[in-house]
Amino acid sequence: MSYKVYYFNFRGLAEPIRFMLKYNGTEFEDVRIERENWPEWKDKMPMKQMPVLEIDGKKYFQSVSICRYLATKFGLSGKDADENLEIDSVVDTFVDMRLKVTQAFMLPEDQKEAAMKKVLEETIPLYLSKLNSLAEENDGYLACKRLTWADIYVTSLSALINFIGKGQDLFATYPALKKVIDTVESIENIKKWIAERPVTEY
Amino acid sequence: MSYKVYYFNFRGLAEPIRFMLKYNGTEFEDVRIERENWPEWKDKMPMKQMPVLEIDGKKYFQSVSICRYLATKFGLSGKDADENLEIDSVVDTFVDMRLKVTQAFMLPEDQKEAAMKKVLEETIPLYLSKLNSLAEENDGYLACKRLTWADIYVTSLSALINFIGKGQDLFATYPALKKVIDTVESIENIKKWIAERPVTEY
Repeated sequence: MSYKVYYFNFRGLAEPIRFMLKYNGTEFEDVRIERENWPEWKDKMPMKQMPVLEIDGKKYFQSVSICRYLATKFGLSGKDADENLEIDSVVDTFVDMRLKVTQAFMLPEDQKEAAMKKVLEETIPLYLSKLNSLAEENDGYLACKRLTWADIYVTSLSALINFIGKGQDLFATYPALKKVIDTVESIENIKKWIAERPVTEY
Repeated sequence: MSYKVYYFNFRGLAEPIRFMLKYNGTEFEDVRIERENWPEWKDKMPMKQMPVLEIDGKKYFQSVSICRYLATKFGLSGKDADENLEIDSVVDTFVDMRLKVTQAFMLPEDQKEAAMKKVLEETIPLYLSKLNSLAEENDGYLACKRLTWADIYVTSLSALINFIGKGQDLFATYPALKKVIDTVESIENIKKWIAERPVTEY
């Protein structure tokens, strides 16, 4: 099978898909489209958005759905509906946080400061402490007491959250959650990808 | 098994869960918490948020994850990873639209008008025409050419989108999509629920 990941030239929302493919050792073409060329690409994408994963010429969209799909193929999903609910609710919780954080970050300057203060003092601690408790309950993983795509998903986007938090390590005060990230980043294939991937700001 | 749905006294984000349970004929306690009583309930919820589904005393959060879980139990999910990707990407697409619409709707008055104009003229048509094409390709369903939880999810929230669009039927100009909604609303158990559910604004 041939895989292509289409996205802009940054990690962003494509990084979870790239992490999943790299984890499994699946070769893919990492298509990075520069901002100035986006207008000519836009109409080729199913929802005029990226990331898009192309498998054997068919384009799939929605990054979380794609990761869940790859997880099923790569043995990183739950063994039954109950386990998948555990995994899915972790991922959706992280997505909720990401949306709230990026929404505040993109506000006009006059509203941004107050919104980011709330995000850093209330939103992020609420979400990260929940994820930290889950990591404590699940022996160093976020769900199911073993490595699942929830761990890979959260880890792949942790740097984006830190970027938005002005580069401070927002995960540092959540040791169990921090350990999840360390565990995933120590997986040989992922470690190699982090070392060799294009250097971009986020 | 005993089921309780906790939410405010409106349809909102609990309605997809209620639709799923009703579809299957599963009894549940429909716990509706008035705004003024929310402070005393808040800390009892896993993420200080609702909707929450309690199954035999255990509380689950994240409405989309819950619907996917119930779908697996009730025979409304895909038969394999490929079908589930189809279903999931429909649901995530609708969620994307819902977030964009509600985000614009909740802006302060001075920004709201321009944002809602964009939502009504660009965002909603982009998303609904995509969903309409999918309904055309899938013989009157949104995925897999048969009834899945994607149809129930979208239908249960269609009235919310219309409420935000000032009550006009935004789905009226998308006949294949409109037919999906009609099909779901004609299912006996769902029809009965729509007739008997508490009347609320949204």
